[in-house]
Amino acid sequence: MIDRASGLPAYRQVADELRKKINAGEYRPGDKLPSERVLVDTYQVSRITIREAVGLLRAEGLVSAEHGKGVFIRPPQKVERLSRSRLSRAARSAGQAAFLADAASNRFTPAVEVDIRVEAATTEVAQVLGIGEGDEVLVRERVMSADGQPIQLATSRLPRSITAGTAIEQTDTGPGGTYARLEEAGHTLAHFSETVGARMPTPDEASLLRLGAGTPILVVRRVAVDTEGAAVEVNDMRLAGDRYELAYEFPAD
Amino acid sequence: MIDRASGLPAYRQVADELRKKINAGEYRPGDKLPSERVLVDTYQVSRITIREAVGLLRAEGLVSAEHGKGVFIRPPQKVERLSRSRLSRAARSAGQAAFLADAASNRFTPAVEVDIRVEAATTEVAQVLGIGEGDEVLVRERVMSADGQPIQLATSRLPRSITAGTAIEQTDTGPGGTYARLEEAGHTLAHFSETVGARMPTPDEASLLRLGAGTPILVVRRVAVDTEGAAVEVNDMRLAGDRYELAYEFPAD
Repeated sequence: MIDRASGLPAYRQVADELRKKINAGEYRPGDKLPSERVLVDTYQVSRITIREAVGLLRAEGLVSAEHGKGVFIRPPQKVERLSRSRLSRAARSAGQAAFLADAASNRFTPAVEVDIRVEAATTEVAQVLGIGEGDEVLVRERVMSADGQPIQLATSRLPRSITAGTAIEQTDTGPGGTYARLEEAGHTLAHFSETVGARMPTPDEASLLRLGAGTPILVVRRVAVDTEGAAVEVNDMRLAGDRYELAYEFPAD
Repeated sequence: MIDRASGLPAYRQVADELRKKINAGEYRPGDKLPSERVLVDTYQVSRITIREAVGLLRAEGLVSAEHGKGVFIRPPQKVERLSRSRLSRAARSAGQAAFLADAASNRFTPAVEVDIRVEAATTEVAQVLGIGEGDEVLVRERVMSADGQPIQLATSRLPRSITAGTAIEQTDTGPGGTYARLEEAGHTLAHFSETVGARMPTPDEASLLRLGAGTPILVVRRVAVDTEGAAVEVNDMRLAGDRYELAYEFPAD
């Protein structure tokens, strides 16, 4: 299996072989990787080489080590979130806030922890929302879980001038969520823009989302714009990279 | 600065302080981080603590170490790519393939290396393209660079029954690129769907994209659908997470 004449270090070759087996489904999510001893026998390399190979796969997020139990193939299962339909007026009218729509279409049990506060708009937030620096902003800080596992952090900011006196300032915003309440308050939504990036989590984010080593996060900023052209909400989301897949559809013309 | 009474390890506190300075712009991209000795003095902690703190920031992709030169703040500068306009018919008619549109709007000098081959459709590709397993597929494998730095790998697959005899099988597909040629061949495009995920690169991807430690990739699969409802191309892209930001806009109704 290992080609000593190739320029590639042995641990890279072993990692390549194991990765192929994982991607081909020969090892399945939740399966335990063969023990170090077995892998040493299989590939005829040293224990150190096996450790380096497994370390590489851990860094790539393909396997995770459970202390005292062994190394396991990580589940690739993702939450599909189709941006357009989950944020549609039809979904809002049916009483589904976006995350509940995700839960329904992906068949998981959702839970949301909400923390609400009021802060003064920073220069950047003021610019995005088209309000004055220092103006009051309502902040909804959320940790969203699927089947008890935190998978998304979301921080929404809205001008207080819009949210004062509405259920948006309550923990439970009611059927259809914040966007339904915004539309009831006369801010009919026209479109959303989302920017998507990827980076490694900070230690706080990794701990809140219980991310294993080698798991990046998707960073999404959504801005909701009403029919007057006003930005009424900016939502900064951080999603577990091993759990989410974002889906977008757009016309070709 | 360091609160010995807090439960947080000293290296985490130092990393938090440095991260704040980077995010606040106090240290700017390209700046050299103060030397270990200076940081030891500033925070009154051991050299080992400083190394652990800097190691954490490296793992997060905020700084990179250049051998013998020091540790530098990494540039956060991203390529904005607005999916809809870069893939618009107007852009195609103006002769701009998507990557060239990115280059123009982000003011970088583009370069594309293309490798073309024919392969038999795997089960998965056959399913996506709605063709038979084993049917011939044209594969366009590309490495795209901005100002000499590779930033994207893209692998497009199209049914050979569509591409045979067209410039899509040439290295240079001509003005407007593959999509313009597809439309000339009668496959008017109706819409695109893109799914976006994030993961750590494989060693090959990291080396092709020259990614520093702690840099994830954005994984994008685009499917182009024509007005007959046929999937005419599937494009698997891997984008440097520290260089790209994807932008999407969609209506709220």
